[in-house]
Amino acid sequence: MPHEVQVRVRYEETDQMGVVYHSKYLHFFELGRTEAMRAAGMRYRDLEDEGVFLAVSEVGVRYLASARYDDLLTVRSRITAVGKARLRFDYEVAIEDGAPLVTGHTMLACVDENNRPRRLPPRVLELARSQLEV
Amino acid sequence: MPHEVQVRVRYEETDQMGVVYHSKYLHFFELGRTEAMRAAGMRYRDLEDEGVFLAVSEVGVRYLASARYDDLLTVRSRITAVGKARLRFDYEVAIEDGAPLVTGHTMLACVDENNRPRRLPPRVLELARSQLEV
Amino acid sequence: MPHEVQVRVRYEETDQMGVVYHSKYLHFFELGRTEAMRAAGMRYRDLEDEGVFLAVSEVGVRYLASARYDDLLTVRSRITAVGKARLRFDYEVAIEDGAPLVTGHTMLACVDENNRPRRLPPRVLELARSQLEV
Amino acid sequence: MPHEVQVRVRYEETDQMGVVYHSKYLHFFELGRTEAMRAAGMRYRDLEDEGVFLAVSEVGVRYLASARYDDLLTVRSRITAVGKARLRFDYEVAIEDGAPLVTGHTMLACVDENNRPRRLPPRVLELARSQLEV
Repeated sequence: MPHEVQVRVRYEETDQMGVVYHSKYLHFFELGRTEAMRAAGMRYRDLEDEGVFLAVSEVGVRYLASARYDDLLTVRSRITAVGKARLRFDYEVAIEDGAPLVTGHTMLACVDENNRPRRLPPRVLELARSQLEV
Repeated sequence: MPHEVQVRVRYEETDQMGVVYHSKYLHFFELGRTEAMRAAGMRYRDLEDEGVFLAVSEVGVRYLASARYDDLLTVRSRITAVGKARLRFDYEVAIEDGAPLVTGHTMLACVDENNRPRRLPPRVLELARSQLEV
Repeated sequence: MPHEVQVRVRYEETDQMGVVYHSKYLHFFELGRTEAMRAAGMRYRDLEDEGVFLAVSEVGVRYLASARYDDLLTVRSRITAVGKARLRFDYEVAIEDGAPLVTGHTMLACVDENNRPRRLPPRVLELARSQLEV
Repeated sequence: MPHEVQVRVRYEETDQMGVVYHSKYLHFFELGRTEAMRAAGMRYRDLEDEGVFLAVSEVGVRYLASARYDDLLTVRSRITAVGKARLRFDYEVAIEDGAPLVTGHTMLACVDENNRPRRLPPRVLELARSQLEV
């Protein structure tokens, strides 16, 4: 079952077509995975304090319908692949409990503070894998 | 040959990893296609005035290396597919004339002012196709 | 008593100094007044539907200390002046219930859908004034 | 005479009122002072490499008229005050060589890499003062 978090669309996130500008969904995805990781016991802020950084290496998004100012969006996030040095999250964004407006994924590569590839710490690897099996 | 435009990285576009945040490349892609369309004689601002809107329906991005504050980036854009009601652009972002840091594409769907699908105007279709053959 | 709403700092909102970039506080102010107006019975989304737009005409901000990624911020907003065609909000942003990191204000001018000055509707004027007296 | 730099409004910078969202002018101010400092021989990127950071401590903006998508804006920046540990810039943003749409200022406080107050290096102080006299 995906993790869910809600977010209200800000005026700043709209554009002159009267809808949410397409890049803003990457911020909703970031919010979704931050909260999904917190809920799973691997707070991203703590990872960085331990020298574990997750850099986005790939993004894919499909836009099916538009969100508007002040809409209350639900961001559903789940871990869909776990490697020794990377994680994949898949996302859906909907208005409240409606059909997805936008779907997407991000691949995250584990790097150290100098942006060099490194392995995920064993504890994180285990927690991430346990999410996969959910 | 792709259209090229340069853009200087703003401080606002960096994040606490010290590099350009991943969503910002979608803004560089927007800049790239805006200028590529202007150069090809189909200024996007004029299209909207004629009731022709191009909504992003799909995005894909691969991040190969990082850009930093104050880097002078080159955005290379080209039209890679033209349909009756859609256009695809492919992009590369590099530091000056270096190897690509980021590659990506956007699919644009033609809609009217009420966000309903419509065909590209014949003149735009022709101009876009002529870019394809370049 | 000011209206309070909480917001979690996004990674996207940080910059390479490792703190929240200064323009992002204007987004927290927007969030603050949107929720303060909703709580006071004048949902901004409904105002726009009635042809009443509030355009920012002036902004002032003082930065006393920094917020960081993943901080849970409290935005305190209150209406501090009401005119026939304008509203002033004052804001404080703090980490949870701490001392203000940032203080500021925005003046909002009431305009119609063509961006021409107009008066606030009587009901909004009354609601806004009642907030002043709180 | 103020330093001038041009910037084209991005679609991303518009909101559903069809104009540039108010926080975006802080990004144009950032661009203005970055280029003004480069032109004056004190590239901000180099300052940070020397451990000299300029943190925004105060912002004021007045919005007189709106900019729109694809407008070519001129940002005029000048240094209006220089202290031992701070700099003030004033800005005007106009469409090409028109009347100002937006005016504003930022106060910048000099800090070290740990965000503690420090003095401006003598060379920067001298260069900044020489700009004042222009």
